[in-house]
Amino acid sequence: MSPPFDNFAILAPGLLGASLAMTVRERGLARRVTVWARRAEVRQACAESAWCDAATATPEEAARDADFVVICTPVSMIADFAARVAPSCRDGAILTDVGSTKSLICRKAAAAMPDNRVFVGSHPMAGSEKTGMENARADLFVGRHCFVTPLEDTPYEAAERVVRFWRDTGMDVATVNPEEHDEIVAHISHLPHVLASVLCSQLDGKPADWPHYAGNGLRDTTRVAAGSPDLWRDILEQNREEALRAIAGFEDELHRLKAALRNRHDATVKSILRRGKEFRDRLT
Amino acid sequence: MSPPFDNFAILAPGLLGASLAMTVRERGLARRVTVWARRAEVRQACAESAWCDAATATPEEAARDADFVVICTPVSMIADFAARVAPSCRDGAILTDVGSTKSLICRKAAAAMPDNRVFVGSHPMAGSEKTGMENARADLFVGRHCFVTPLEDTPYEAAERVVRFWRDTGMDVATVNPEEHDEIVAHISHLPHVLASVLCSQLDGKPADWPHYAGNGLRDTTRVAAGSPDLWRDILEQNREEALRAIAGFEDELHRLKAALRNRHDATVKSILRRGKEFRDRLT
Repeated sequence: MSPPFDNFAILAPGLLGASLAMTVRERGLARRVTVWARRAEVRQACAESAWCDAATATPEEAARDADFVVICTPVSMIADFAARVAPSCRDGAILTDVGSTKSLICRKAAAAMPDNRVFVGSHPMAGSEKTGMENARADLFVGRHCFVTPLEDTPYEAAERVVRFWRDTGMDVATVNPEEHDEIVAHISHLPHVLASVLCSQLDGKPADWPHYAGNGLRDTTRVAAGSPDLWRDILEQNREEALRAIAGFEDELHRLKAALRNRHDATVKSILRRGKEFRDRLT
Repeated sequence: MSPPFDNFAILAPGLLGASLAMTVRERGLARRVTVWARRAEVRQACAESAWCDAATATPEEAARDADFVVICTPVSMIADFAARVAPSCRDGAILTDVGSTKSLICRKAAAAMPDNRVFVGSHPMAGSEKTGMENARADLFVGRHCFVTPLEDTPYEAAERVVRFWRDTGMDVATVNPEEHDEIVAHISHLPHVLASVLCSQLDGKPADWPHYAGNGLRDTTRVAAGSPDLWRDILEQNREEALRAIAGFEDELHRLKAALRNRHDATVKSILRRGKEFRDRLT
């Protein structure tokens, strides 16, 4: 059986891009894998790896005659890269990405596509606070969740090929529209990140011996705050309105707990804790 | 060498109490271990275990002729239990606890001590959202942090014996006064718990398919919210003032991030994320 794709291009091989190249190679999902990396030493490392056939000096070269392109740059650059490389691709090519926000990216990239090129947004939720190619692994995607976010007028077949591709990497895929995606991740990913970062930022102003007393609870709760400030500032800015709404909803619930605690409404304090436990117990 | 303690009593053997009994037995820290448990079936299980010499039907019986008593009940009951069992203990006995709050407990228990009995508060930070005797293990305390919280007039030798005891279980021990303890744990333990519970309580009101999309970030961030609502309501009530202060400090910092995000002050957003990362990177 021939592989689903012929010339597979990956732009910016960090944790996700490099893991994806390994997966594509290991599972035989493309005949040829080409990557573009900004830094010469990264290109060198890619070219020497078993999972990459060529590493190019420009994104256009990587995309030349490609039938599938995955853009793995920071979210604020994805749409521009899509517009830039689309003309180099093969007729009928599909472009996708791995960005944590979708609305701005999908609408801007789709509007910039020339004829016979389709952009379909993806968000494989397989990131980690451990970024970079050095943490890449071929099983990164297995069993994790992926969103594919076609627009109203995205050709059905292109969306289906993207869905099938992520399923082929081992992911569990759902399609939602980009706006619904951004609302969901604002709550289940961006808000938890904000809370962890703000908590850590607050604790940073406290006596220097306090971190020494931290238990596993604090470690777990704040793990994501070790993520890249640049990447996360980008994500929050790209998803500003939904992130602000999610934060406001959190503030309301925190205020309710605070008022109950201050006014000794034990039943309300307990009901918030119990509701929280019920939700957490459903996260297996 | 004879063990440091003769008759060692543990009241209420849950995760911490049962793990402590196992540790005392394994490390030879007492000649005899007696436990009191409220429920008959738990007493039965204790009596049949290798780490318990006797399980009694009343706390007074467990404390009879004890030279060291560790009270492992929920925080709101600790001081009352200390007052109740102290008269049964041997002259010169030391009583301690494993409660997550210290100010109210230590001052109330110390005031209730008869002559020749000393209460010294402890907080071994080795709890988990997995509670109960069935999760107990002899290495629970190894390498974890423990606070010992003597009052101004606690006899030095009694405090030192408590410090030495926790060191003998493998813990890393610091002494601070109960008020300082409560301020520290309000920030590094109770506040993270509140944030996780409030986040989960908020998410509980969202569409039923959202939990399905949760990544490891949300799982880590909210793990502690699976803890017992009863225990945590007790803890927050016992440490109400410090918990409210910690929440208020968090709200200020969250408000600062929200305003910066809304007003597109990218540098402020990034500086909060970066400060958060700096703190998190120091938590090894």
